[in-house]
Amino acid sequence: MKKFVNNPVDFVDEMLEGILYAHPDQLASCAGYSRNVVRSSCEDKVALVSGGGSGHLPLFMGYVGEGLLDGCAVGGVFQSPSADQIYEITKHVDSKKGVVYIYGNYSGDIMNFEMAGEMAEMDDIRTAHVVGNDDVASAPKGEEHKRRGVAGIFFIYKTAGAAAEQGASFEEVVRIAEKTKMQVRTMGVALSPCIIPEVGKASFSIGDNEMEIGMGIHGEPGIHRSTLQPADLVVDQMMDKILSDLPLSPGDEVSVLVNGLGATPKEELYIVYRKIAQILKQKLVTVFHVYVGEFATSMEMVGFSISLCKLDAELKNLLSFAAKTPFFEQAALQG
Amino acid sequence: MKKFVNNPVDFVDEMLEGILYAHPDQLASCAGYSRNVVRSSCEDKVALVSGGGSGHLPLFMGYVGEGLLDGCAVGGVFQSPSADQIYEITKHVDSKKGVVYIYGNYSGDIMNFEMAGEMAEMDDIRTAHVVGNDDVASAPKGEEHKRRGVAGIFFIYKTAGAAAEQGASFEEVVRIAEKTKMQVRTMGVALSPCIIPEVGKASFSIGDNEMEIGMGIHGEPGIHRSTLQPADLVVDQMMDKILSDLPLSPGDEVSVLVNGLGATPKEELYIVYRKIAQILKQKLVTVFHVYVGEFATSMEMVGFSISLCKLDAELKNLLSFAAKTPFFEQAALQG
Repeated sequence: MKKFVNNPVDFVDEMLEGILYAHPDQLASCAGYSRNVVRSSCEDKVALVSGGGSGHLPLFMGYVGEGLLDGCAVGGVFQSPSADQIYEITKHVDSKKGVVYIYGNYSGDIMNFEMAGEMAEMDDIRTAHVVGNDDVASAPKGEEHKRRGVAGIFFIYKTAGAAAEQGASFEEVVRIAEKTKMQVRTMGVALSPCIIPEVGKASFSIGDNEMEIGMGIHGEPGIHRSTLQPADLVVDQMMDKILSDLPLSPGDEVSVLVNGLGATPKEELYIVYRKIAQILKQKLVTVFHVYVGEFATSMEMVGFSISLCKLDAELKNLLSFAAKTPFFEQAALQG
Repeated sequence: MKKFVNNPVDFVDEMLEGILYAHPDQLASCAGYSRNVVRSSCEDKVALVSGGGSGHLPLFMGYVGEGLLDGCAVGGVFQSPSADQIYEITKHVDSKKGVVYIYGNYSGDIMNFEMAGEMAEMDDIRTAHVVGNDDVASAPKGEEHKRRGVAGIFFIYKTAGAAAEQGASFEEVVRIAEKTKMQVRTMGVALSPCIIPEVGKASFSIGDNEMEIGMGIHGEPGIHRSTLQPADLVVDQMMDKILSDLPLSPGDEVSVLVNGLGATPKEELYIVYRKIAQILKQKLVTVFHVYVGEFATSMEMVGFSISLCKLDAELKNLLSFAAKTPFFEQAALQG
């Protein structure tokens, strides 16, 4: 296992220790759970909480900060955080204005967030659940409730986070999060597996000349495996699938997220974006803002995903709002 | 070759096309050279220009933007840009206040920047050269002029860029850049090679259970190759080497950059930072600000580097200044 680790069982806790050493002015742990990460100062506003397995940085905790999340429950590598953990964080961040949970569509996360929400409701803390399911590869149209949540959750954090930061009500923040969720679609492709530290070896294999389109961020099966093709052809296939699910008309406006899964160089992500830009231009679709980099990874997996978020004036305005965490900074965008 | 590329000969130009499609409000090409990247609007100030081979994003062009560089000459993968290219960019960014070249200590880059500078001087454009040589692994103390420039150049860009943006004179910007250079030291470690697209395979190999401490960002030899050790022991060795070259006393203040070389997950970079923080704390050295992420890569190389920059009030102030490029954003830091 070619990784920089000490004892693999300490992987998550040592990583968290490093993060809190590095960013004490912005992040803190809370409520006796070293794996609960919150902003170092609580705000009087609707709170946003996420959570999920480790191994996806900057997902999930990397989005705790100004204009984004208030807290995050961190699980083991690819494992859900516990309901108790989420419940404690909920009590910590609530300022009597309610807590909106935003997390991916995985059974462990759903179960634990639902349980935490029920516990919080008994304390008269209002909660709501927004479950990201942007991965079009994971179930056909009409069965969106079966789709996995992947990198597109970033857009939900971004718009709902901006709304909450600007003082929106609980209902408004939930409405914005749900609205954004409906406008986001993602497709991924992988060329290699990743290594879970405690396992110490790749959990599956992809042939030397193979790629898998639609593979999930934990290595869940995709749409099909084939010979590795030139970047433009890979992007064509992925965009076809996204655009058949999220039809765009001339004049429509989108934001694009090209997300590296871990080991794919930024140079290649921009070669990918080049083709996306050409496809959208041909469809007379305007690109409002482009994010290129690592936003939701799978450790050292080779691969990337493309997410589109269809915008209207309201979402554009929220996307433009400034945000600042140790992992992501964005000055206010010009409209 | 498991990479997302089209024809490998188009790698650099397609990447640049993607970058300019993605960030037209911030970046532009100039002077008939599609590989010359400049800010989309020129500023009336001392200009900073860098350049170097492709394959290191965000180095070098990723630092073109507010509070950092004004232009960058982009070469082929691991190849110097041409003197003509640099000369043309120099004319473009000069606002009669002079142009400061900041680049790494590689013979091709030195030759081409010197030639470009001579051509510019004939046009009465004042130029100066600041050559980054932060890699302590590449030559012993006393032979600093032989050391390679690696990730630590970021600190030179940052402080000199802030000074120039605030209207400092040519002499002042050069002084700040030279002063910063003297305070920066870097050590790297690699676990794997990377693949140059036009070559299509790894240019060297490291055994399955080996690491090489001190390896350069193009695979240049390091200090020694050994069995892969636990992260803490790797960091210990690297910090020993850095601290014997840049002695720190109790009460001293530093900024730390933990730089991923390409395929090393952010989780592991924070495990690395955890140990660095412990070492510095034990020495009663204060950490002012920490940068963790990919700042100077080698495509998909597995590895990381540690850079320390010793600070005084002046450098701290400049490091705190806001910066904004498509690849790097930093709001003003609190002192």
